[in-house]
Amino acid sequence: MEAMTEEKILSFFQGCIPTDFSSRTQTQANRILRLFAKVREELLQELQKIEGAEFKLDTWKRAEAFTEDHSFLGISFVCIVHAKNPHVPAGHFNLRILVMKLNDGAEVGWYGGVMDINPSYLVPEDATHFHKTLKDMCDKHDASYYPRFKKWCDEYFFIPHRGERRGLGGIFFDNLTSEEEENFSFLESCSNTILPAYLPILKARMCDTYTDQEMVWQQFRNGRYTEFNLMHDKGMKFGLQLSGFRKETLFASLPLTASWGYKSDPEPGSREDELVQVLRCPQEWA
Amino acid sequence: MEAMTEEKILSFFQGCIPTDFSSRTQTQANRILRLFAKVREELLQELQKIEGAEFKLDTWKRAEAFTEDHSFLGISFVCIVHAKNPHVPAGHFNLRILVMKLNDGAEVGWYGGVMDINPSYLVPEDATHFHKTLKDMCDKHDASYYPRFKKWCDEYFFIPHRGERRGLGGIFFDNLTSEEEENFSFLESCSNTILPAYLPILKARMCDTYTDQEMVWQQFRNGRYTEFNLMHDKGMKFGLQLSGFRKETLFASLPLTASWGYKSDPEPGSREDELVQVLRCPQEWA
Repeated sequence: MEAMTEEKILSFFQGCIPTDFSSRTQTQANRILRLFAKVREELLQELQKIEGAEFKLDTWKRAEAFTEDHSFLGISFVCIVHAKNPHVPAGHFNLRILVMKLNDGAEVGWYGGVMDINPSYLVPEDATHFHKTLKDMCDKHDASYYPRFKKWCDEYFFIPHRGERRGLGGIFFDNLTSEEEENFSFLESCSNTILPAYLPILKARMCDTYTDQEMVWQQFRNGRYTEFNLMHDKGMKFGLQLSGFRKETLFASLPLTASWGYKSDPEPGSREDELVQVLRCPQEWA
Repeated sequence: MEAMTEEKILSFFQGCIPTDFSSRTQTQANRILRLFAKVREELLQELQKIEGAEFKLDTWKRAEAFTEDHSFLGISFVCIVHAKNPHVPAGHFNLRILVMKLNDGAEVGWYGGVMDINPSYLVPEDATHFHKTLKDMCDKHDASYYPRFKKWCDEYFFIPHRGERRGLGGIFFDNLTSEEEENFSFLESCSNTILPAYLPILKARMCDTYTDQEMVWQQFRNGRYTEFNLMHDKGMKFGLQLSGFRKETLFASLPLTASWGYKSDPEPGSREDELVQVLRCPQEWA
């Protein structure tokens, strides 16, 4: 595929905005696409430097989205990092708007998002850095945000049959009305906080040496990540329900490899167990 | 753990039969446990020879099962083989009885079972051998069984979001009343058909050489197997709902390792694609 300039990518997505929405919704959608394009570009630059290679670009259109009257418009930005090195926590960042068209023709929209990290080993200063960066950002908007959204995140990522969370959490929010200008400003702040929250951790851990045993443990953690995504994740369920949704995109959220063990619970007091303890009882990190 | 004789294992399980069921149900339960103990022993002998090592025995009791009035009694025999060699199909065999206690105190029971194979590569003579062995067994009981149970199996293992089945199927049956003596006889025949249906395939393929590419493909197939089990399998859902059910047992049904790819659909016409075609459109093998 011919390389697409950033501008072309943006206009590709802008060309996907259905014209049967109000001009107000179309304007909002355009503004969000510009925001996501900017964040995408910044993340891409940093992650490509780390990867030492250019990422490939795939664009696709959901045929069904162009054949019917639209009942909703969804725009979602997702960045997920699963690193080979077991000392680098998986990072997950999802920001979105959902606009519903009501029966009377009115359009209502909400912002939502998730930002969380999923390490195989607990490094308290990393957890603190991540949560503190999110908290500082939240506090600039509303002092109630971080405590509420942090709790929501811990609840969302709970895997009931394991009695533990997928990772160390972060923030999870939803239903912030797009009527409020301040809420777009919050979404903007979230977008701009992905790099400062995650990159320092990624850079600090990516050159750590690791053992075979640590890789095995990472694979077990990937197994739990997979269990959560396949059994509980709402984004996965939403995507699977959407007729014609692209499977490659949906399943790209999973780790590349995962494994399951029999009686593989870590030794009490081990570094592996140290992580499991905080997955069972979430801590305050900021 | 001290080695348990076969007799001790059987009496361990017999000791688990709750005494608040009718003597008729208790007698049935005892008979099924004897059947399963016999099949277990036969399978164990053969599989241990192949593995070249003794399997470990774990026994456990679900605490909750002994603290309440019983609304049901379930006995299930499960044998699952996930081989390292990508030319050996995973084998899955599950036979069971479920007895429900009705409000009026009456007890009704049903037999059910699944026997299916899940190869990474299609070997038509293996598929034919497996299905023909099951069909011959079924036909001795009821000529309608194989066609019905084969279709049921193809339907059960469908993964909707992939548009393909987990494997090449076999038979799936349920709701065969335990009132009918003939139905126990069918369960007995199923038990005795696991080895003749599966072992020749396992033995024929286990020494095949394989390439790295074939192992990669097996891992993708394991990914689909995992998707089915975590997202659709009723046994998994049942086990997770049962308070205090042992997770190690439940998740032992998964392959040890699995992986997911991006745009990893096989080349049209390749051996990998040949399998996918029959997973999309199940064939008649017998």
